Amino acid sequence: MSKIAVLGYGVVGSGTVELFYKNKDKIIRSAGTDLDIKYILDIRDFPDSPYANKFTKDFDQIVNDPEVTIVAEVIGGLKFSYGYVKACLEKGKSVVTSNKELVAEKGAELLKLASEHGCNFLFEASTGGAIPIIRPLHQCLAANDITAIAGILNGTTNFIITKMINENMAFGDALALAQKLGYAEQDPTADIEGHDACRKICILASLAFGKHVYPKWVHCEGISAVTLEDVMYAESWGGAVKLIGSVKRTDDGKILPMVRPAFVCDNNQLSHISDVFNGIMVYGDAVDEVMFYGRGAGKLPTASAIVADIADAAKMTVTSISQTWEDSSDDSFIADYRDDVVSVYVRVKGVPAEKISAAFGTVEYLSREGQPADELAFISPAMKERDFDAKLEAIDGEVLGRIRVLELE
Amino acid sequence: MSKIAVLGYGVVGSGTVELFYKNKDKIIRSAGTDLDIKYILDIRDFPDSPYANKFTKDFDQIVNDPEVTIVAEVIGGLKFSYGYVKACLEKGKSVVTSNKELVAEKGAELLKLASEHGCNFLFEASTGGAIPIIRPLHQCLAANDITAIAGILNGTTNFIITKMINENMAFGDALALAQKLGYAEQDPTADIEGHDACRKICILASLAFGKHVYPKWVHCEGISAVTLEDVMYAESWGGAVKLIGSVKRTDDGKILPMVRPAFVCDNNQLSHISDVFNGIMVYGDAVDEVMFYGRGAGKLPTASAIVADIADAAKMTVTSISQTWEDSSDDSFIADYRDDVVSVYVRVKGVPAEKISAAFGTVEYLSREGQPADELAFISPAMKERDFDAKLEAIDGEVLGRIRVLELE
Repeated sequence: MSKIAVLGYGVVGSGTVELFYKNKDKIIRSAGTDLDIKYILDIRDFPDSPYANKFTKDFDQIVNDPEVTIVAEVIGGLKFSYGYVKACLEKGKSVVTSNKELVAEKGAELLKLASEHGCNFLFEASTGGAIPIIRPLHQCLAANDITAIAGILNGTTNFIITKMINENMAFGDALALAQKLGYAEQDPTADIEGHDACRKICILASLAFGKHVYPKWVHCEGISAVTLEDVMYAESWGGAVKLIGSVKRTDDGKILPMVRPAFVCDNNQLSHISDVFNGIMVYGDAVDEVMFYGRGAGKLPTASAIVADIADAAKMTVTSISQTWEDSSDDSFIADYRDDVVSVYVRVKGVPAEKISAAFGTVEYLSREGQPADELAFISPAMKERDFDAKLEAIDGEVLGRIRVLELE
Repeated sequence: MSKIAVLGYGVVGSGTVELFYKNKDKIIRSAGTDLDIKYILDIRDFPDSPYANKFTKDFDQIVNDPEVTIVAEVIGGLKFSYGYVKACLEKGKSVVTSNKELVAEKGAELLKLASEHGCNFLFEASTGGAIPIIRPLHQCLAANDITAIAGILNGTTNFIITKMINENMAFGDALALAQKLGYAEQDPTADIEGHDACRKICILASLAFGKHVYPKWVHCEGISAVTLEDVMYAESWGGAVKLIGSVKRTDDGKILPMVRPAFVCDNNQLSHISDVFNGIMVYGDAVDEVMFYGRGAGKLPTASAIVADIADAAKMTVTSISQTWEDSSDDSFIADYRDDVVSVYVRVKGVPAEKISAAFGTVEYLSREGQPADELAFISPAMKERDFDAKLEAIDGEVLGRIRVLELE
């Protein structure tokens, strides 16, 4: 029998408790041992809850109860979570979390702590919500040398882009709709500027390549500069604009993690992922490519991953080393994105084609409905990004848009 | 230390050995214990192989060697495999297999044997090749009540259909091309008529719903009757024809497994899966929908799943009950597909629209390039399939094509 404590009774916390009791028999069968929730920690009172007798405001009661062997941290942020999780792991209690900030900022330290105390720190829910990705990556794809990962990791921005593509909504209108529907926060910065996707690609990169990738080392661009015109040109090119978090191994043995809007070709499955859905493509030497698709957020989808981790934690008798990575003291293993070879979509105003040819050689011109006579849009040849920057500067014109083409090989 | 025996050195067997030695360090890290291949069983001689000293023609040597704790069965078929696998499990050796026929026909019996002898019978490679689906289904989605599964489970037929869609090739020409490229057998019956997809949906259905679903109980239609015209109408409707293996829970608590070509709407991710790729959509009460995508066959993709199962088998100290199902003595839990409510695409010749309206009420007419004046194509309203059959008979005209619309809710 494993007793569980749930830290936080917000959206994900209440979903976790609800789902646990709804499908308890099946969950226990998967765990192979009896399970029950003993405590729910929250500073608020829930006197009418069917679980009223499980609530506590006293974390010490949980951490000092030897019956509690599994703790689900679903508070979010670092302020309380970090200390709570550390204290639990130090007592040998396994922790499962949906907290991407915690894993991206403190993962290596917490994994080390788990290993030192013979328990596990699991975080399937931190990346891709409902989508099984963490366990498949280190377990089902264990026989693969992973070469790259690329994903649509943020549902809010994908919803906004989908509205721009399908309904010709301008970015600002689509954002306002996302806020109205509750998909975007009132301060949407973390989603829109790619910080949320950045934390997730840090977690995936750390797991796939074995060293902690801190968010501050990742070149990160959001979607706030993407226009309806860019979206239309992408369609005429045969693809779609998507916010992509990716990491790949580079020729010099480093890795290149990055978050940015990208032109994704229609024959890449990621281009077809719409609305709030997420998709994560993994490239490996044996599998070639595999993709995992589903809801990246939400009450029950996230709870699904939390509860699966709980069942797994109950089953595991030793620390899982395959889902552990080392800390990294500096960013010397992170490649400079300006050395990466890319093609780039460019939209310019008042620049003659001769100037573009002079700078870039042969380019692929794109067209769109309502294209003004003084507007040109093209895809540059592939070259190092720092060379591209120099050439673009050389044409000395008004650049209305530039978006990289996704290419991972 | 676990010693492994590989039974069969064909495409998958040689891929398994190659991949194991290529990524051995990573595989051992995932297994958490040292691993090595001790035997390779094959009736042929491979004197020049770097693994020549591991070959044996004597199965008894393997089954009687207590050092061998994990056996990978990659012979295929039932003739030798069934006896070999039974003998290994009876000796408490865990078995991993890519053999879909073995799992679909004998799964319940072999899982019971594994359980009785405290070992495991694992079969990630039997369904979806490289795609992690078996483990995600019973482990990562453990907190979900699974309501339905639908997948493109056969790469050969998906390649043929893709050629019909993208290059306007007729069915026969596309099949000939698939044979030329080695994607289809000289006798393509098992692929074309859906028998291969049927075995795979039996495995997924058995795992998801807990009772063995035998192939003989599954209504199965292949793609040999699908025409270029059908493919064109599907496109004009806003989707694509795909060979779908599916299973869903019905209102009366039974399950309905089925294999048939279907019109798949463009907003279903399955419609975008092309060429030899497979995709499997899983519907659950917490996750809503998740999809797994990748190569469904091939040397290294299948080996990737075999080797991941080997690492897992090495890690497991008890029989995994969550990936076990019970045998079933009869088909009383299988719903009759004629009671299922479906919309159907129909193409008729020489039938006036009035007769169609009289039989079906309001229908959605489709059009295509080059449509003859005496041809009509339409989507019927949703109704029980046996009612649809009666109505179609009533219009008393030449039916050139009929394909169900995929609908799982």
